[in-house]
Amino acid sequence: MSKATQSSVKVFSPATVANVACGFDVIGLALDNPGDEMEIRICDRPGVHIAAVEGADLPLEALKNVAGVALQAMLQEYGDASLGMEISIRKLIQPGSGIGSSAASAAGAVAGANILLNGHFSQEALVRFAMEGERLASGAAHADNVAPAIMGGITLVRSYQPLDIIRLHTPPDLWVTVIHPQIEVKTSDAREILKQKVLLKDAIRQWGNVGALVAGLYREDYALISRSLEDVIVEPIRSILIPAFQDLQLKCREAGALGGGISGSGPSVFMLSKGEANARAAADVMEQVYAPLGVDYKIYVSKISTSGVRQIS
Amino acid sequence: MSKATQSSVKVFSPATVANVACGFDVIGLALDNPGDEMEIRICDRPGVHIAAVEGADLPLEALKNVAGVALQAMLQEYGDASLGMEISIRKLIQPGSGIGSSAASAAGAVAGANILLNGHFSQEALVRFAMEGERLASGAAHADNVAPAIMGGITLVRSYQPLDIIRLHTPPDLWVTVIHPQIEVKTSDAREILKQKVLLKDAIRQWGNVGALVAGLYREDYALISRSLEDVIVEPIRSILIPAFQDLQLKCREAGALGGGISGSGPSVFMLSKGEANARAAADVMEQVYAPLGVDYKIYVSKISTSGVRQIS
Repeated sequence: MSKATQSSVKVFSPATVANVACGFDVIGLALDNPGDEMEIRICDRPGVHIAAVEGADLPLEALKNVAGVALQAMLQEYGDASLGMEISIRKLIQPGSGIGSSAASAAGAVAGANILLNGHFSQEALVRFAMEGERLASGAAHADNVAPAIMGGITLVRSYQPLDIIRLHTPPDLWVTVIHPQIEVKTSDAREILKQKVLLKDAIRQWGNVGALVAGLYREDYALISRSLEDVIVEPIRSILIPAFQDLQLKCREAGALGGGISGSGPSVFMLSKGEANARAAADVMEQVYAPLGVDYKIYVSKISTSGVRQIS
Repeated sequence: MSKATQSSVKVFSPATVANVACGFDVIGLALDNPGDEMEIRICDRPGVHIAAVEGADLPLEALKNVAGVALQAMLQEYGDASLGMEISIRKLIQPGSGIGSSAASAAGAVAGANILLNGHFSQEALVRFAMEGERLASGAAHADNVAPAIMGGITLVRSYQPLDIIRLHTPPDLWVTVIHPQIEVKTSDAREILKQKVLLKDAIRQWGNVGALVAGLYREDYALISRSLEDVIVEPIRSILIPAFQDLQLKCREAGALGGGISGSGPSVFMLSKGEANARAAADVMEQVYAPLGVDYKIYVSKISTSGVRQIS
């Protein structure tokens, strides 16, 4: 019988930006901060248990908890019915923020547990398990947050059937600025206002931009990345849910950001920049735009994380 | 006053494949063969003149001829009213074949003339002039054939306003097989049967594939290129115009091709392959599929041309 080499692990599980402009539903990226801290421990009671949740009001019942459901899917495939694991979560990513809070819980649970299982599962399998957490959180087992949370960097979900995820090249000097306005936008609402059909000419413009964005990443051509960060399909509809969205877009670009859009289904808004100075300038602009609005907000400045979930002890 | 260093030039202008699978309307590539041969000469009569056309029944009146119109647009911007040029065309790409016959005429005229003008115009300007030829040929000034014809390799048209064309990386061992069934498919008919609206979920799948195809080209990952060569939007509609299309797709892949689709608006069908042997195997399969049909056809096997229009004397 195989023995785990360690009985507990602490991990950092990163926030993620999905729906990267033209890459709606396919391109996501991982941040260096913020992120959740999680501890996974082997325990005597078989099955999955949530020992503690700090920082957010989330269910302790494993099958109602995103992290629990994801880990449950993993242990089921592992097949050792006597194995038990418990999870403690220190939630630093606010649920409902649009920067992959549920994905971080799901990804951290399975990637952490996989360390205890000596890397038994591939990254793609971990994505598959974490997607079950997303299914609980939003009703759809999407991969565009859990993939970058687990694999790090910038990822592209080419296909779900079969699952086919590509880790794109991350230019070394690409930074992200995120503003999280403290308002509620439900993922389900954000999805409902989308139209089921789109104009072919808009779709063509969108896939021209997606191709150009991917080329820009590989060429490390920041000007091309900037020109490609355009979403003619989803942003015009969803941005009405986000206060001062047009101002953020316009003024952050003026201040030197490459461009950006809605993070996930909002309300967070992200901007990409070349270098930390431009990313901090974008943060200043976001603050200037939001300070007069009377809406609370948090702002994050981060490099793109190249590692995804990582062990911290 | 500036003087041209040479008074005549012969060029080879390549056939091109546009609408590369998922990259409908945005991704095109240049072939090493077939291609047109053209001669452009400075002459005493101001303006543009078609001296001769061999191999196809095309108008000799400059403003009704694709090459003439493109060159006219270029000379107009050049601004020397006394300058005259004449064009002789040896047409080796059959008009209506779907491998960029009109684009080759337009591209060859302006790229050839630009040699006589000592490279006065940029490649992007040449594309812009050649697009005027396309406007005459099909009613739409599209760039997805003239861009690869002029720039070589694999190109992506990100945007028309402003014109933004990206030359993608071409993996060194990427080959193309083309079958041209000798049937008529009018570009205007092929365009009319397309729907103006498409399902958002199909559009998302398409741009996932476009992103993955571009990543595959940069990574020289032939398996990824193969998985990405899928068109869920246009091919299901247009392929009904092409005899035995499904057979070609299926059997060429079985024989080792990476995948392919309709070239331009048809009737030609292209397959990409890794290496010449696989490209020739695809040609054999195309022959086996088409021989019993009683439809005449031509088959071409070619590397992707990295040069575009090139001087041959």
